[in-house]
Amino acid sequence: MVSEFEFIHRIKSKYALHRIGDDCAILPKDAESDLLVTADMLVEDIDFRLDWTTPEFLGHKSLAVSLSDIAAMGGTPKWAMLTIGIPQHLWNTDFIGRFYAGWFALATEFVVELVGGDLSKVPDKLVIDSIVGGECAKGKAVLRSTAKPGDAIFVAGTLGGAAGGLRLLQNGIRFDDSLPLEQRDLILKQLQPRPQLTLSKALITLDITTSMLDVSDGLSSDLAHVCSASGVGASIDQSRLPIEPYLASNFSFDECLDMAINGGEDLGLLFTVDEKNISLIDSMPVTRIGSITANAGIIELNHDGKTTILKPKGYRHF
Amino acid sequence: MVSEFEFIHRIKSKYALHRIGDDCAILPKDAESDLLVTADMLVEDIDFRLDWTTPEFLGHKSLAVSLSDIAAMGGTPKWAMLTIGIPQHLWNTDFIGRFYAGWFALATEFVVELVGGDLSKVPDKLVIDSIVGGECAKGKAVLRSTAKPGDAIFVAGTLGGAAGGLRLLQNGIRFDDSLPLEQRDLILKQLQPRPQLTLSKALITLDITTSMLDVSDGLSSDLAHVCSASGVGASIDQSRLPIEPYLASNFSFDECLDMAINGGEDLGLLFTVDEKNISLIDSMPVTRIGSITANAGIIELNHDGKTTILKPKGYRHF
Repeated sequence: MVSEFEFIHRIKSKYALHRIGDDCAILPKDAESDLLVTADMLVEDIDFRLDWTTPEFLGHKSLAVSLSDIAAMGGTPKWAMLTIGIPQHLWNTDFIGRFYAGWFALATEFVVELVGGDLSKVPDKLVIDSIVGGECAKGKAVLRSTAKPGDAIFVAGTLGGAAGGLRLLQNGIRFDDSLPLEQRDLILKQLQPRPQLTLSKALITLDITTSMLDVSDGLSSDLAHVCSASGVGASIDQSRLPIEPYLASNFSFDECLDMAINGGEDLGLLFTVDEKNISLIDSMPVTRIGSITANAGIIELNHDGKTTILKPKGYRHF
Repeated sequence: MVSEFEFIHRIKSKYALHRIGDDCAILPKDAESDLLVTADMLVEDIDFRLDWTTPEFLGHKSLAVSLSDIAAMGGTPKWAMLTIGIPQHLWNTDFIGRFYAGWFALATEFVVELVGGDLSKVPDKLVIDSIVGGECAKGKAVLRSTAKPGDAIFVAGTLGGAAGGLRLLQNGIRFDDSLPLEQRDLILKQLQPRPQLTLSKALITLDITTSMLDVSDGLSSDLAHVCSASGVGASIDQSRLPIEPYLASNFSFDECLDMAINGGEDLGLLFTVDEKNISLIDSMPVTRIGSITANAGIIELNHDGKTTILKPKGYRHF
């Protein structure tokens, strides 16, 4: 069977869909601005487990993943729709009210207005579709397809934290305010991730990002998306990867490295900057991890004078 | 437990959400036009059964229900996003390709561009969220909340056909080109409903609709939505209801009447017109079924000199 990425590629080609392939679709709004729209589905027992999270965290995360897509294009979120398929046994509890409380706490912070959606019964598993609309200056949305050989590659945020939190949950640890900080923080990175809207806005003000996307599938997969879309390669220095510091308190070095490279859901930003402009972001909380190369489709991982080829190992549904 | 309508009312009130409650949300686009957005979830074994439909019909219907929401506001659809949660056993078949074929056949007819969405695995049941964006002239979207006492009430399309098709499917009849027309047509009204975009556009050109929505929950429920939103009542003549003609070949008169009044999914339009303007739509394929009254919240059904009070009995999830 084809993978989901191959299938989407086929549909794009068959029906000539030129707006698909970035974190958001870009649509004309008015003379000054473009509309950005994105949709993200979260499915019980695929993307989350009800006994690992709280309704509030789930409401937060449903919105956060879509806000992160808006951040990845350099946009400002404006409105949202929320579609929820809820089983009868959850409808009969306080779940849905608490879910909305978590959703609205984040929406209020970033001034996002709920304007619609749908509410349906489902036979069994909870399903959420989060839709967010945002805006950016006309023609200024930052794409995945515009990285150039020689550009510096940066990451905003740390890598592997959400994957580390997931591993702790898989190991039976549950969120609790009394957990030691090095576990609590990782679990929060999984259950309540922060979209990088503030940093994205600072980058856009400087107008120096040549490409950008969010780290949602995992660095190895997301870098592969950039390389594929831009027709370029990448060279990464392993020692520069901003591995989430708390991982080392819980896991072996090899595990930490694997989570940083292949773990998804961190909602950090992965972006490229022309080498001549990198001094402009010296003071920002971002980490240079390597450079774009002309070696199309090849991602080199360099460490101790040795080079290995990095294959995308992030999460795939199919 | 609260009903879904009560819950949505509470959330609207608690979080001061003034854009929720119509078929679409209305958002500012540019100096001349507003943006309309809508989302509709279809869930396997709640909204459809895979052994009753075809992938092509399901693709068509997923888009049709959202196009109908755009029609109900007097808008023109422009773009769509499609979020699909698909179980592994369907991914391993030709289902998804055939689903898109049905979707695109309708999208092409109404010049709707697919611009994004999401594709996810689900543990068990297929779930679809259909999102459509459209446009209307600024300030000209037709609401549910603006019907006035004395307005004439019209229906475009027939009533009960989709419910009749559902009943035939429940009775074990399956779609087949060789079915007698009076069964085939009803089943197509259920599986492949037509959004009333062309008629909606004609009404908007005349600028005479004082309120409008689509018949999706069922006439009794949808009329109740108008009455509740507008703070009015309605008086309906039973003999004027445009009952789908093929129903009579399959069901008793009482069953036909019940389907016409309470059956959903016809995707007809229910709209009101100031009495002084009704001559303007004489030549249109629409049926006057009664009048708006000042008797807030009360829907009277008149027949043979007797009046009964109609209660909303359309489909509810909770």
